[in-house]
Amino acid sequence: MANSLSPRIRKLSEALSRLPGIGPLSAQRIAFHLLSGEDRSEARELAHLIEDAADSVRHCELCNTLCEDTLCSTCSDPKRERDKICVVESPADQQVIEGSLAYRGLYFVLGGRLSPVEDRGPEEIGLEKLMKRLEAEEVKEVILATSFTAEGDATAHYIALAAARHHPGIRVTRLARGIPAGIELEYTDVATVAHALLGRREA
Amino acid sequence: MANSLSPRIRKLSEALSRLPGIGPLSAQRIAFHLLSGEDRSEARELAHLIEDAADSVRHCELCNTLCEDTLCSTCSDPKRERDKICVVESPADQQVIEGSLAYRGLYFVLGGRLSPVEDRGPEEIGLEKLMKRLEAEEVKEVILATSFTAEGDATAHYIALAAARHHPGIRVTRLARGIPAGIELEYTDVATVAHALLGRREA
Repeated sequence: MANSLSPRIRKLSEALSRLPGIGPLSAQRIAFHLLSGEDRSEARELAHLIEDAADSVRHCELCNTLCEDTLCSTCSDPKRERDKICVVESPADQQVIEGSLAYRGLYFVLGGRLSPVEDRGPEEIGLEKLMKRLEAEEVKEVILATSFTAEGDATAHYIALAAARHHPGIRVTRLARGIPAGIELEYTDVATVAHALLGRREA
Repeated sequence: MANSLSPRIRKLSEALSRLPGIGPLSAQRIAFHLLSGEDRSEARELAHLIEDAADSVRHCELCNTLCEDTLCSTCSDPKRERDKICVVESPADQQVIEGSLAYRGLYFVLGGRLSPVEDRGPEEIGLEKLMKRLEAEEVKEVILATSFTAEGDATAHYIALAAARHHPGIRVTRLARGIPAGIELEYTDVATVAHALLGRREA
């Protein structure tokens, strides 16, 4: 289909189609959109923002999330509760927890999960850094918020064991599994219902 | 939700969310994706491709589509039928016609459609350039392939009138309206069925 496409538009479309959630057709639509204005200021502005972020965004020394200073805004916020550390896989997951407005503690971003297939072991997810972090006297609880997939569960289990061994005094918890908000019971999968039953609480 | 996001990631997400088909959440996901690799080569490569395309892609002198030379690959292809010109709104629409493999003629890309609301008149869609193009002796037919919306229809109508006035010898046609391929009659809207009935052909 794209045989009459100019080489630069084709290369740009291909690069865009490798981004998450963008298929070949949307990639082509975005490429045409970026080149549609006469002055191409939107394209240049976007290129500049990507370059600028790639140059300046780094990892928080304490929690590993993406930020622009030595410490991220959460770690340097004196109003956060410093006795809790929520362990997430990615900055995107951290944003979801922040969006819930139900957590005021600190974070630790693994940058992935244990994966034998992708050759990612404890070192790649910064386990040592996390264990060092738990040495701080103030830490009372570690909340494991890795995904509820086989690899996410294995990662949580591994971290829980390591924490119990090195810091036996710290409480280690995992996010609750159960029925999602606003969902009819009828349409919930059986595994979720099983977890919701096992985790039932006083009404 | 994005209150703890670093300013550069926030700005990049905002710019990405202005691209067609990308909402705020996918924009944030793409921004995190671009900044996830340690060396950020994917981000830098994408910035470079956008910049490079913005610098080098221009409009074909003959048909107005996006290309990198004076003439686009279609206009300079000696195997294309030079007696037909298909008028489309955008390079993306041109790609769809090319994808059909049912057309071997040339093109003219308007770069939009007539729109009183958006203050786009005949000059903005290059009508004069198109009329000049029709002066070439070889042109026998103009196929109007603007969208079947109110504005697209008005644009086609306007071009048809101008062509009839300035080049009465040239045949002016419009894409057929009718039932789309692979669609059950039962699920087709009445306007489309009406057009299919009016445009019926010998079986």
